[in-house]
Amino acid sequence: MGSSFGHLFRIHTWGESHGGGVGVIVDGCPPRIPLELSDIQVELDRRRPGQSRLTSPRNEEDRAEILSGLFEGLTLGTPISILVHNKDARPAAYEHLRDVYRPSHADYTYEAKYGIRNWQGGGRASARETIGRVAGGAVARQVLRRLGFGEIVGYVSRVQTIEAGCEPLEVTREQVEAQITRCPDAEASERMIERIEQARHEGNSLGGVVTCVAHGVPPGLGEPVFDKLEAELAKSLLSLPACKGFEIGSGFAGTELTGIEHNDPFYAEDSRVRTRSNRSGGVQGGISNGEPIVLRAAFKPTATIRQPQQTVNRELEAVTLEAQGRHDPCVLPRAVSMVEAMVALVLCDQALRQRAQTAP
Amino acid sequence: MGSSFGHLFRIHTWGESHGGGVGVIVDGCPPRIPLELSDIQVELDRRRPGQSRLTSPRNEEDRAEILSGLFEGLTLGTPISILVHNKDARPAAYEHLRDVYRPSHADYTYEAKYGIRNWQGGGRASARETIGRVAGGAVARQVLRRLGFGEIVGYVSRVQTIEAGCEPLEVTREQVEAQITRCPDAEASERMIERIEQARHEGNSLGGVVTCVAHGVPPGLGEPVFDKLEAELAKSLLSLPACKGFEIGSGFAGTELTGIEHNDPFYAEDSRVRTRSNRSGGVQGGISNGEPIVLRAAFKPTATIRQPQQTVNRELEAVTLEAQGRHDPCVLPRAVSMVEAMVALVLCDQALRQRAQTAP
Amino acid sequence: MGSSFGHLFRIHTWGESHGGGVGVIVDGCPPRIPLELSDIQVELDRRRPGQSRLTSPRNEEDRAEILSGLFEGLTLGTPISILVHNKDARPAAYEHLRDVYRPSHADYTYEAKYGIRNWQGGGRASARETIGRVAGGAVARQVLRRLGFGEIVGYVSRVQTIEAGCEPLEVTREQVEAQITRCPDAEASERMIERIEQARHEGNSLGGVVTCVAHGVPPGLGEPVFDKLEAELAKSLLSLPACKGFEIGSGFAGTELTGIEHNDPFYAEDSRVRTRSNRSGGVQGGISNGEPIVLRAAFKPTATIRQPQQTVNRELEAVTLEAQGRHDPCVLPRAVSMVEAMVALVLCDQALRQRAQTAP
Amino acid sequence: MGSSFGHLFRIHTWGESHGGGVGVIVDGCPPRIPLELSDIQVELDRRRPGQSRLTSPRNEEDRAEILSGLFEGLTLGTPISILVHNKDARPAAYEHLRDVYRPSHADYTYEAKYGIRNWQGGGRASARETIGRVAGGAVARQVLRRLGFGEIVGYVSRVQTIEAGCEPLEVTREQVEAQITRCPDAEASERMIERIEQARHEGNSLGGVVTCVAHGVPPGLGEPVFDKLEAELAKSLLSLPACKGFEIGSGFAGTELTGIEHNDPFYAEDSRVRTRSNRSGGVQGGISNGEPIVLRAAFKPTATIRQPQQTVNRELEAVTLEAQGRHDPCVLPRAVSMVEAMVALVLCDQALRQRAQTAP
Repeated sequence: MGSSFGHLFRIHTWGESHGGGVGVIVDGCPPRIPLELSDIQVELDRRRPGQSRLTSPRNEEDRAEILSGLFEGLTLGTPISILVHNKDARPAAYEHLRDVYRPSHADYTYEAKYGIRNWQGGGRASARETIGRVAGGAVARQVLRRLGFGEIVGYVSRVQTIEAGCEPLEVTREQVEAQITRCPDAEASERMIERIEQARHEGNSLGGVVTCVAHGVPPGLGEPVFDKLEAELAKSLLSLPACKGFEIGSGFAGTELTGIEHNDPFYAEDSRVRTRSNRSGGVQGGISNGEPIVLRAAFKPTATIRQPQQTVNRELEAVTLEAQGRHDPCVLPRAVSMVEAMVALVLCDQALRQRAQTAP
Repeated sequence: MGSSFGHLFRIHTWGESHGGGVGVIVDGCPPRIPLELSDIQVELDRRRPGQSRLTSPRNEEDRAEILSGLFEGLTLGTPISILVHNKDARPAAYEHLRDVYRPSHADYTYEAKYGIRNWQGGGRASARETIGRVAGGAVARQVLRRLGFGEIVGYVSRVQTIEAGCEPLEVTREQVEAQITRCPDAEASERMIERIEQARHEGNSLGGVVTCVAHGVPPGLGEPVFDKLEAELAKSLLSLPACKGFEIGSGFAGTELTGIEHNDPFYAEDSRVRTRSNRSGGVQGGISNGEPIVLRAAFKPTATIRQPQQTVNRELEAVTLEAQGRHDPCVLPRAVSMVEAMVALVLCDQALRQRAQTAP
Repeated sequence: MGSSFGHLFRIHTWGESHGGGVGVIVDGCPPRIPLELSDIQVELDRRRPGQSRLTSPRNEEDRAEILSGLFEGLTLGTPISILVHNKDARPAAYEHLRDVYRPSHADYTYEAKYGIRNWQGGGRASARETIGRVAGGAVARQVLRRLGFGEIVGYVSRVQTIEAGCEPLEVTREQVEAQITRCPDAEASERMIERIEQARHEGNSLGGVVTCVAHGVPPGLGEPVFDKLEAELAKSLLSLPACKGFEIGSGFAGTELTGIEHNDPFYAEDSRVRTRSNRSGGVQGGISNGEPIVLRAAFKPTATIRQPQQTVNRELEAVTLEAQGRHDPCVLPRAVSMVEAMVALVLCDQALRQRAQTAP
Repeated sequence: MGSSFGHLFRIHTWGESHGGGVGVIVDGCPPRIPLELSDIQVELDRRRPGQSRLTSPRNEEDRAEILSGLFEGLTLGTPISILVHNKDARPAAYEHLRDVYRPSHADYTYEAKYGIRNWQGGGRASARETIGRVAGGAVARQVLRRLGFGEIVGYVSRVQTIEAGCEPLEVTREQVEAQITRCPDAEASERMIERIEQARHEGNSLGGVVTCVAHGVPPGLGEPVFDKLEAELAKSLLSLPACKGFEIGSGFAGTELTGIEHNDPFYAEDSRVRTRSNRSGGVQGGISNGEPIVLRAAFKPTATIRQPQQTVNRELEAVTLEAQGRHDPCVLPRAVSMVEAMVALVLCDQALRQRAQTAP
């Protein structure tokens, strides 16, 4: 029941990490949007493990197939079904986890909720589930392009305590993709690589922050009062695995300013209303104001580590978990594509909602 | 279209700050829940302006009426309609704002979205809109009590740079209500009062952080993958006026730890699975794990200040806005009831969803 | 949970027949639609009992108040809350029904579902609940007018076995309102009046059929595959009290034709695609084709009669129910406004959905 | 946006008749329900063309694959993705239809709505789309079995003017499956076969009526006021291709009775409330009353015929359509599985909703 996202532009994802595959239905996509398989594949490639020496060595090709909703290179307005078969599933590697609850994973909570779980991998809680989101986000991006929106640019702005020193509004996708960390600050990126390699060596893991900017968003998007733009964005990001925090505009830091310091003065520029500062992060009263949307998402260090850990099994016996197998010490570089996808999905959905509500 | 919240336990709010009134329909409330008008009024009283010398002097009585859904002290299972008439509306006080966009308010964005707005007050963007949420949250609390959940305790943990020094899990509602700041740390509370009084004197405003703990939440709540418990909580809080950030468990600070430091080891206690630390904040993989749910919401300084500000009017002319009238220098003490209400609404909704999905 | 209707143009109704009142929130109404209280009141007056000697003598004034969503005669794009206070409630008249299940009423099923019911009247199952629908439908009509749709004309086409002899496409609202039966065939109307008066005299009741035509519906409305236009219409009408059947176009009678006889040949007229016959009823493949939408709804005879009936009470004892009090022998004349309201709500909702989905 | 059905037990279907395939995601299925591929395949086999000499010779195997949501023979509580590849697609056979609007098909309306359509077959309007529904219905049936519901038995009660003479409550699935017409009245079935063969010979087509009974439905299902059980059933059936009418209980015929004749007297039997007649069709006030649910759906004669027809093409030129290729003279025998599937989906959804709403 919780596998659908969006109101008008809607995705439904499905699939466990170890089953027939994973996929998504994109419903509500307007007709006659140009869409190629490669539009989707390029984003899946940014998401997949094994794309650089930094990420998990799991070698998944993640080849997408589009099964419906497309005709002669254009969307039909009907559901777009996208499928990625599971290739590299190795259930045997999980045999020792059949009865054990890995700390800070979802093993215990899935068991508590459903009374059953597919222990051959992370099931629905696996990062593999995000394939459907990223594919859906790629379709959303095509719609946004058609509607004249600007780019959505995410990047790694912090790994553990290493902070990037860049101005969010100036970061380009090219700069981001030039670094395997997806941190556009080359110097910080070097230090991040070192820190990540060290964590891998120690069987440890690291978290951090992804910053994301949506350029060229027209004013008027967002549905007061519960489906405010920032509320939908917050939900979308907190629904990503390992995300523990969200900020828009000035966020937590902004609470240390006074109102006089914090308010964004309006001025007029080229017959448009602009703000001189953007502590609002492009959203006021839940509705976009035409300024860039700026947000940050916190990702905790990955729960999978290769150090022994104390835990319990299904019989509630204390056991020591000796982690085996693959280990991705830092999901941040891959998380960028996930964050961008969620932002694209929210913006596309709100853009369609806004079209419906316009005064006739 | 965005005025509904929840899936099974659902509220629909309505009302502008200057119209006939504000209210809420609570739909999906199970039948035979004991409910008194006073259960609702007590929460509205915690929300309303003018309850202490700290808050806005607007003197609204906010008397709730229950118009349906109740019979002989019990809910009927049918929609509960709750109405609060507007009493203290003073449209004349807003006459000078008819054409002016107040900085960091929603005047401009509502105009951009709808092409029309009720300029006699904040309209739907007014904090007055939260009356419906708080009333709905009060009903949710009654359901949660009946379902055996523990208390939801929110408190002001920071005003601007003044941080409370309390252990979230130990804070009680009594301690919170004992301070007009709703900061249970008496010493910090004193300093907050001073700072707020100074801001009022200067015509300035302050933001801060509300921390909230939900005790006694059973494991199994939350719907992967998009309606994860933390995702629904994040959405609910970011939908509150002035909220700019959300954290659950270790939040942004947790990203500075390594996986070894961050993971919560499991152990068994009284035939229950417990975690020794709670950096997860009571949620793993989007599902509650039985530990207390701990979250934090950032509120920016209120946009209404009494200093002159640069802005534009509807004709895009630069104008100086001389604020007049009432001014609430810090919404934090009142925001506690709003945060608690949203948390109650999310938990109640997820509890009902979980009942539907249980294995037969 | 079931008190909401529509996807983008949405109504939420509330209220029992014997409580504080009944009402509706209209959410998703586009901004800047002209709306007067009288637009709503005129439809409520067509719905209310006591408007002619034919209908129930219950003397309800049903004065609507608009509490929000309107400003200077225009909709704001925010929720429109409409309230009608209960005036003529006479709980004492129901005292003898406290423990008895009236045959073919909802007393037993509400008790079975909720374990509680407001026995002081029909509760939510009362026809009084339709006030909110009719008010919402009146708002929808204003939107449809603004969007250039034609009129929605419903009429009583049959009372028990007395069939009207009129051509659905030619019936006008004026003809309908000229007869207290709302059957535009004056001769049939006379016989219906006689039959209804006789039923009243005998303490009996009658059912019949309402036919409804929506003129000037543009092609392209309806969302395959589950939210087809005819599916939404069917749902909307079957949700009315006492409705037991629905037909669109040729309906049940059409099943007796062969495909050669039944297909509607296309032709071109004034650069428009038209069909020579309209057995499709204006809908093909779930989408409007530009021809008038023609449907029929069956209403069973009202369950309230004044003859003694065998039934059981809550203790499952056999009892004889001696009906007392007011009695409306035929709801058909009043049902016309309800049918039209539901059709307006569906069309308005689908029109907004279609705007969202159009190719950019 | 219209490809989802249900609220808690939800299906999302996708796929055109001529693309990669068709399929469904079943979301909201409770965990630990026993489910085998064969439970699904058996229903798809009842739906598919070519199963008897009566149905379309299109030879589709329709082999289902379950890609997710199942583990060791039990549902996981996560989305169940079911896929059927398209095998027998022959786009060349549709080449002559590229620009022509077939009468009473959805060619024109899809073009009007989306401005594009997959002319290589019926696209989403094809009966092939119902594969996803039937697969989803098969999962719903497993849940209903687990919840203790009785059987859902549909049958062909009329083909054109040939009416079956059977008592709906006594019809068994075995009797239905014993006839290739799925009309359990063997004598009527013989005449139907003759009539259908004649229609095939003439290139003509026939419609008719499917009657369906849901046995063993507990009281309390259905959500007033808009999601009444009969409203959801009506929507579900009118969403099937070619369905033009719906009746529950006494339906249109019941409108000819008076209230005295129509009301269903209550009595007590084995500590249960029963009704002596069942003109209500098992539903009162939108809620099941424990009696069998009895409904009827009208299906118009199939639009595909092999006689020349007048129509227009995309340029609005008058053309004569010479139908070619395959032709299914009567969809009724196959429609039985579709009707049953929709009824199962509605009941399962309402059963889960009812669990959520029960008094704690």
